[in-house]
Amino acid sequence: MTTSEAERSAMRRALSLAATPGVPLGPNPRVGCVLLAPDGTTIAEGFHRGAGTPHAEAAALAEAGAAARGATAVVSLEPCNHTGRTGPCSEALIAAGVVRVVFAQPDANPVAVGGAARLREAGVEVVGGEMIDEAQALNRVWSFSVAHRRPFVTWKFATTLDGRSAAADGTSRWVSSRAARIDTHRLRGLCDTMLVGTHTVEVDDPELTVRDEHDQPVAVQPLRAVMGLRDLPPGRRVFNDRAETVHLRTRDPEDALARLHALDRQHVFLEGGPSLAGAFLAAGLVDEVVTYVAPMLLGAGASAVADLGITTITDAVHLDVSDVTVLHGHDGEDTNVRLTMRPQLRRN
Amino acid sequence: MTTSEAERSAMRRALSLAATPGVPLGPNPRVGCVLLAPDGTTIAEGFHRGAGTPHAEAAALAEAGAAARGATAVVSLEPCNHTGRTGPCSEALIAAGVVRVVFAQPDANPVAVGGAARLREAGVEVVGGEMIDEAQALNRVWSFSVAHRRPFVTWKFATTLDGRSAAADGTSRWVSSRAARIDTHRLRGLCDTMLVGTHTVEVDDPELTVRDEHDQPVAVQPLRAVMGLRDLPPGRRVFNDRAETVHLRTRDPEDALARLHALDRQHVFLEGGPSLAGAFLAAGLVDEVVTYVAPMLLGAGASAVADLGITTITDAVHLDVSDVTVLHGHDGEDTNVRLTMRPQLRRN
Repeated sequence: MTTSEAERSAMRRALSLAATPGVPLGPNPRVGCVLLAPDGTTIAEGFHRGAGTPHAEAAALAEAGAAARGATAVVSLEPCNHTGRTGPCSEALIAAGVVRVVFAQPDANPVAVGGAARLREAGVEVVGGEMIDEAQALNRVWSFSVAHRRPFVTWKFATTLDGRSAAADGTSRWVSSRAARIDTHRLRGLCDTMLVGTHTVEVDDPELTVRDEHDQPVAVQPLRAVMGLRDLPPGRRVFNDRAETVHLRTRDPEDALARLHALDRQHVFLEGGPSLAGAFLAAGLVDEVVTYVAPMLLGAGASAVADLGITTITDAVHLDVSDVTVLHGHDGEDTNVRLTMRPQLRRN
Repeated sequence: MTTSEAERSAMRRALSLAATPGVPLGPNPRVGCVLLAPDGTTIAEGFHRGAGTPHAEAAALAEAGAAARGATAVVSLEPCNHTGRTGPCSEALIAAGVVRVVFAQPDANPVAVGGAARLREAGVEVVGGEMIDEAQALNRVWSFSVAHRRPFVTWKFATTLDGRSAAADGTSRWVSSRAARIDTHRLRGLCDTMLVGTHTVEVDDPELTVRDEHDQPVAVQPLRAVMGLRDLPPGRRVFNDRAETVHLRTRDPEDALARLHALDRQHVFLEGGPSLAGAFLAAGLVDEVVTYVAPMLLGAGASAVADLGITTITDAVHLDVSDVTVLHGHDGEDTNVRLTMRPQLRRN
């Protein structure tokens, strides 16, 4: 079954609505919806603003009212078939008299699946897969998390050209440039969880909040997760009231991710020390690596990456480079280079 | 004094002639010359092909013959005032009846200097500095070498993301991608000297030749220089007949460069192990750093850079990044990233 030019144009608009900055809050995917009259003109639009608020279809149907009868719904994700905090969108579309649904990405979420089948059963014409790549890119972390039943893990580390994260005496404040540190906060803000080990909390006492370019905390903070068996002194900054914090009493990366999945977490930003990152890497549980390379030589000092138990070159962890970005320094600061990569091999 | 549009156009042509691929052979700068008739049309052109062959001005004058009388010479370098293997160009221009000289870069070479003054003394109109930046860029290594009385030093190293040059068992063949290795040979071919330490010759036994993308040695090979006090077994590959080789019996970087300067060497490509590079770096004798970053993690193994005696972050060697180039891999090979940098600080 094919789609009309008006429907394809509406899908572009639905994807754009779905990508509205700042939404959704919470674990739900980004979704946009456009209702078209039989002549191809737009009746109503909607997008999902976050858990507990109406789905994109419901928002558009509410705006359309009776005008939805006979309409085509163009939506970036297969309508859900599940009663959660809101009712199933499939039933709402049927009840409103929508006669045709064009969607992009199938809903892989096991609790929501079945919307297309339910619509067809009720006599609604359904076309799936229109602009599926764009829709999947929009919700790549959500899609990954639904498919793998665990959060997507981004491991970030900063290193000098010679693989050091700090000088021999432990001083490290300035390995990354200011531009790289601002960029790191931007990436932190795209995740819903920041994860470190108990050792990092004890030694470095980081606050683990997301700050804007003026060094002020942003309004919505990711969850702070600390993993490890050690008890932590309550005075540590990670326990202040700037964000929620959870202590995962496990040393097993898989277990830690299972617990975070149970908390509806989809995107973990791993910023712990080299040992924690090494454990995730060895377990094949790093999905993305972001490295800031500072054009600096130390010759000695703490290694940015721990011993991974690799003794021969053929066992090296290779990564596919998806992006290289030059972060120019201002006021004489170093230019840093950011590499974004995906591990090629799972070593488990 | 200003230049005409015809003269500026002729200077662009002279710079282009100077940049003719494959010249000059030997230590001389690249130079191009265009002779213009009073009406601005081109009478003759010339460029320098290497030590022992005519200078650019002489080549153009020979082509012009009697037509040079009354002409303007547009030349990318100040005409020399020195009798070497060829006579002084200032005198040749005067003798040929050239009435005006427009040049780009002043000749800083102490034995050649004075051409402009000599020409003016003989009544020739002289304008210097036209497109000086382009001319200096063309001969940046020659200019550096003349000004500093030592070769320009490019230090190249390849590293994994975590600062390793080899795995724990010493295997390292594949740290760099094939594209990075081909690029390294291209850079080697732009230098006139390759420098390693005796330790590298003993342990790795490299041939130190420049090979093309088909892994064949190129026709003109840089000098192979080995520095260090140890005697070397004559059977080492560095002593084969593919290129000239010199053993510099010193451990002092400054001394080694002085000896290479005496041999008319202008551009050293430093590819020794981390200790040799560290000694040059500590002495402030590294002028350019080229780093190939392989998107690979080893976690352990030989460090790409030796202990530089730096213990605290404020003593780190910072580098200015002048270029970042992504070298895409073919057939599933790693994408490597090349950083070209200049050290900011001299630590001597």
